[in-house]
Amino acid sequence: MRAVDIIEKKRDGLELTTDEIRFFVEGFVRGEIPDYQAAAFLMAVYFQGMTPRETADLTLAMAYSGQVLDLHDIAPVVVDKHSTGGVGDKVSLVVVPLVAAAGLPVGKMSGRGLSFTGGTIDKLESIRGFRVELSVEEFREQLRRVGAVLCGQSADLAPADGKFYALRDVTGTVPSIPLIAASIMSKKIAAGADAIVLDVKVGNGAFMKTLDQARALARQMVDIGTALNRRVVAVISDMNQPLGEAVGNALEVREAIATLRGDGPSDFREHCLTVAAHMLRLGGRAQDLSEGRRMAEEALASGAAWEKFRALVAAQGGDVAQIEEPERLPRARLIREIPSPAEGYLAEVRAYEVGMAAVALGAGRTKKGEPIDHAVGILVHRKVGAFVRRGEPLFTVHANDEQRLAEAEGWLARAVRIQETTVLPLPHIYETIGNI
Amino acid sequence: MRAVDIIEKKRDGLELTTDEIRFFVEGFVRGEIPDYQAAAFLMAVYFQGMTPRETADLTLAMAYSGQVLDLHDIAPVVVDKHSTGGVGDKVSLVVVPLVAAAGLPVGKMSGRGLSFTGGTIDKLESIRGFRVELSVEEFREQLRRVGAVLCGQSADLAPADGKFYALRDVTGTVPSIPLIAASIMSKKIAAGADAIVLDVKVGNGAFMKTLDQARALARQMVDIGTALNRRVVAVISDMNQPLGEAVGNALEVREAIATLRGDGPSDFREHCLTVAAHMLRLGGRAQDLSEGRRMAEEALASGAAWEKFRALVAAQGGDVAQIEEPERLPRARLIREIPSPAEGYLAEVRAYEVGMAAVALGAGRTKKGEPIDHAVGILVHRKVGAFVRRGEPLFTVHANDEQRLAEAEGWLARAVRIQETTVLPLPHIYETIGNI
Repeated sequence: MRAVDIIEKKRDGLELTTDEIRFFVEGFVRGEIPDYQAAAFLMAVYFQGMTPRETADLTLAMAYSGQVLDLHDIAPVVVDKHSTGGVGDKVSLVVVPLVAAAGLPVGKMSGRGLSFTGGTIDKLESIRGFRVELSVEEFREQLRRVGAVLCGQSADLAPADGKFYALRDVTGTVPSIPLIAASIMSKKIAAGADAIVLDVKVGNGAFMKTLDQARALARQMVDIGTALNRRVVAVISDMNQPLGEAVGNALEVREAIATLRGDGPSDFREHCLTVAAHMLRLGGRAQDLSEGRRMAEEALASGAAWEKFRALVAAQGGDVAQIEEPERLPRARLIREIPSPAEGYLAEVRAYEVGMAAVALGAGRTKKGEPIDHAVGILVHRKVGAFVRRGEPLFTVHANDEQRLAEAEGWLARAVRIQETTVLPLPHIYETIGNI
Repeated sequence: MRAVDIIEKKRDGLELTTDEIRFFVEGFVRGEIPDYQAAAFLMAVYFQGMTPRETADLTLAMAYSGQVLDLHDIAPVVVDKHSTGGVGDKVSLVVVPLVAAAGLPVGKMSGRGLSFTGGTIDKLESIRGFRVELSVEEFREQLRRVGAVLCGQSADLAPADGKFYALRDVTGTVPSIPLIAASIMSKKIAAGADAIVLDVKVGNGAFMKTLDQARALARQMVDIGTALNRRVVAVISDMNQPLGEAVGNALEVREAIATLRGDGPSDFREHCLTVAAHMLRLGGRAQDLSEGRRMAEEALASGAAWEKFRALVAAQGGDVAQIEEPERLPRARLIREIPSPAEGYLAEVRAYEVGMAAVALGAGRTKKGEPIDHAVGILVHRKVGAFVRRGEPLFTVHANDEQRLAEAEGWLARAVRIQETTVLPLPHIYETIGNI
C-alpha cells in the first residue's frame, strides 16, 4: 500500500477501505507517512468528504492510535459529554458533579479555549492549586473514589488526533465536518465512553454557523456512534447569544457555583438539567428523560451536586475555601457597566462579539499557549427579546487594563442590536437527534 | 501575510493576488513555508483551479525563483519548443538542428523519460560521450558558436518548479492543468524564451487523454504567454499511436538521423516540419507559416540540418562516427518480429501499451533515477487504418533479455486491435491555437 495511491483515491472521490484508512493513520502516527502527504490527504477529504463508514473507520483508527481506557470496573456504563464550543459555556463544571451526585460516575477530559470560545480547563485554573493534568492512574483513582473528574486530555489518548489537528490548524483543513466529527469521537472513544451526549452549538458564537452545518455534524457523530456501537445523543443548542450571564474564567466558575447551589441564570440551569438528564438516561441510571430530569433537579436541590463539586475540587488540589466564598476567586481591578445606547427590544446580543470582547480583555487567547487572565470577563445582563431602556446596564465588564477595556467596549457595542418592534426570545435547543 | 490564510483563500475558491502567489512561491523555495503547507495549497489548487491571471503570476514567480537567462546577445528573438510527452516523440532531435540550420539559434533544455514517455536527454545519451549536463556558460558559448544546443535542465533555472514538482509527485497533485501549464511555461521563461511552440500531445499515450483536456492545457499555456508578453503557438497532436516508427532510445536516434538525412517515416517528418515552420515564423525568420515550411524543407534537403546535428553532437562531446554510421549506436542482442494475429484493418496501435512495452524492455523507467538500456526498443511498422495480413510483421522488438522480451510481447499484443471493416487513419494534428 502506498500513501500517494490513497491520496489519489480520495482526491478522485472514491471510498477508501478500512485497511487503507488504518494504514494511513498508523503510518502518519509512526512518522512513516510525512506531514506533506497527510496535508494533501486532509485537503482531499475537505473537498471530497467521507462516507459514514470511512468516518467511523477514521475515528476508530485515531482512537486506537494510543491507549484506550476501559473504565468498566468503575462504571457499568461509561458516559461522557462534549460541547463543540461556545461563549459562556460552563456546562461541564455543573453537569459532571451533578450527574456524579445522581449516582453515575463521570470522568471528563476537556480542552483549553481558543479564539472566541472558552475552555473548561482554563476556567478550572481560576481556582488556586487546581491540577488539570492528571495521570491515567490518578484519573482512574479519583473516578473510583469521588465519582467525578474534570481534567485535561491525556497525551496518551488518541495521539493521532492531536497530530492531525496540529496539521489541520496550519493547512486550512479544520472546517471539514467528517474530520471534526472523527476528531471529537476518537477522543471520547479513547477515553472509554460507551455513551456520549453531544452539545452541538450553532450560531455566530459557534464553529457551526448554520443549523444545516450543525445538523450535519451532529448526524455524522451519531452515525459514528451507531457504527461503533456507542449510544449517542446530540443536542443542537443556540449559540447566537452567550449561554448564561458570565463570560470569562473566574466569572464563569462563580456562575457554575451559584447554579450548583440552586441559583444561577435560568437558561444556563435549564441547559445543564437537559444535558444531565440525557446522560443519566444513556448511562442507565434513569429509565427515561423525565426521570433523568427529576434526578438532576433533586441532586441540585439536595446540595449533593454542590458537595460533589467540592469533593472534585478538593481531590484535584484546588482551594476549597475559594469556591465556598467565590468572592475570593480572582477579581479584576476595573469594573465598568455598559449602558444600553437606546430604548427598545434586544434583537441581537451576538455571542461572537462578546467572546471577542473577552479575548480583548485577556480572558482568551488568539494563539495556542498564550497566557490568559482568569479574573477578567463580561457579565451579560439581558437576553435577546428583552425590552431595555436607554442607560440601563447591558453588560458589566471586568478588566485589568484601561486599553483592553476600551477594546472590549468596542466589541460589545458591535454585539448589540436594538429595535423598536418586539423580538421573540431565541430558542434554547433546536433539535435533539440520536438515541433519544 | 500567512501561508495558512493563502491556503484557505484558495480552498474557498477566491482569487489570490500577485503578492500572495509570490509570497507563497518565494517562501516555499526559501524553506520558510514547509512542505505540508505547500502540499495543502497544491491540493486546493487541484480542486479550485486558478484564473489565467493567477496562473501567469505562478509561472512568473516560479521562473524568477532562480536565474533567468537573457540570450538576446545571441538571438534577436529566442525561440523554444516543448512537448508534453509521448511515445516515439524524438521531434527535438530533428527540429533543433533544423531550425538552427535555417538561421535561427535554438538552445533547448529537455528532461528524462518517466513511465510510458521517453525523454530527449535519455535518447541523446545513446551516443557515446554525449554530454547532456552543460553549465550555463557552456550553453551560451555553444549556442553562440554552433547555434544549436540540446541539454538537460539546469538546476539553477526555476528551482521552485523542481521543488513543487517533487512534492506534487508524492501528493496526488500532478494532474492539475494550471500547475502543469505553469510548470512548463516557468522553465521556458527561465530559459529566456520570447516565443514558444508547444506540442500538446493527446491520446492514450499522452498525459492528456481527451481533446478537451489537451485544449484546456494548450489554452492555459497560450494565455500565460499572452499575460507575460510571450508569443505562443500550441499544436495539439495525436498520441493515440506512436509518432514515427521507432520507440526506444538508440532506435529513435537512428530514426532522427534518417529524417535529418532526408529520409524517415512520413508522419514524423511531417510533424518536424510543422513544428519547425512555427518556430521559424515566431522567431521572425519566416514571414509566414508557408515560408517557414519551405525554409525547413530546404534545410533538410540541402543537408544543412544534418550538418548542424553533427556539429551539435561534436560540440557536446558525442562520438560523431557513431551518428555517421548509426549501426554503430547501441544494438540489442535479440531481435524478434511480432506478426499480425489476424487479417484486417488496424483500428488501434495504442501508444500507451507500446510505451509500456518499451519500459518492460528496459528502454524507460518506472521510478526516477533508474538506469535504462539504450539499445532496446520497438519498431512500429504499421499505422492505424492500414490493412494487414495475418502473419505480416507489425512490430520488431529489440531486446537484451528473453523474459523482458516476453513481457513486452504481452504489452504489444494488447496494443493492437484489428477489425474487418475499414478504419480511417488518425488525424495528425487536431488543432493549432495561439499566435498563429
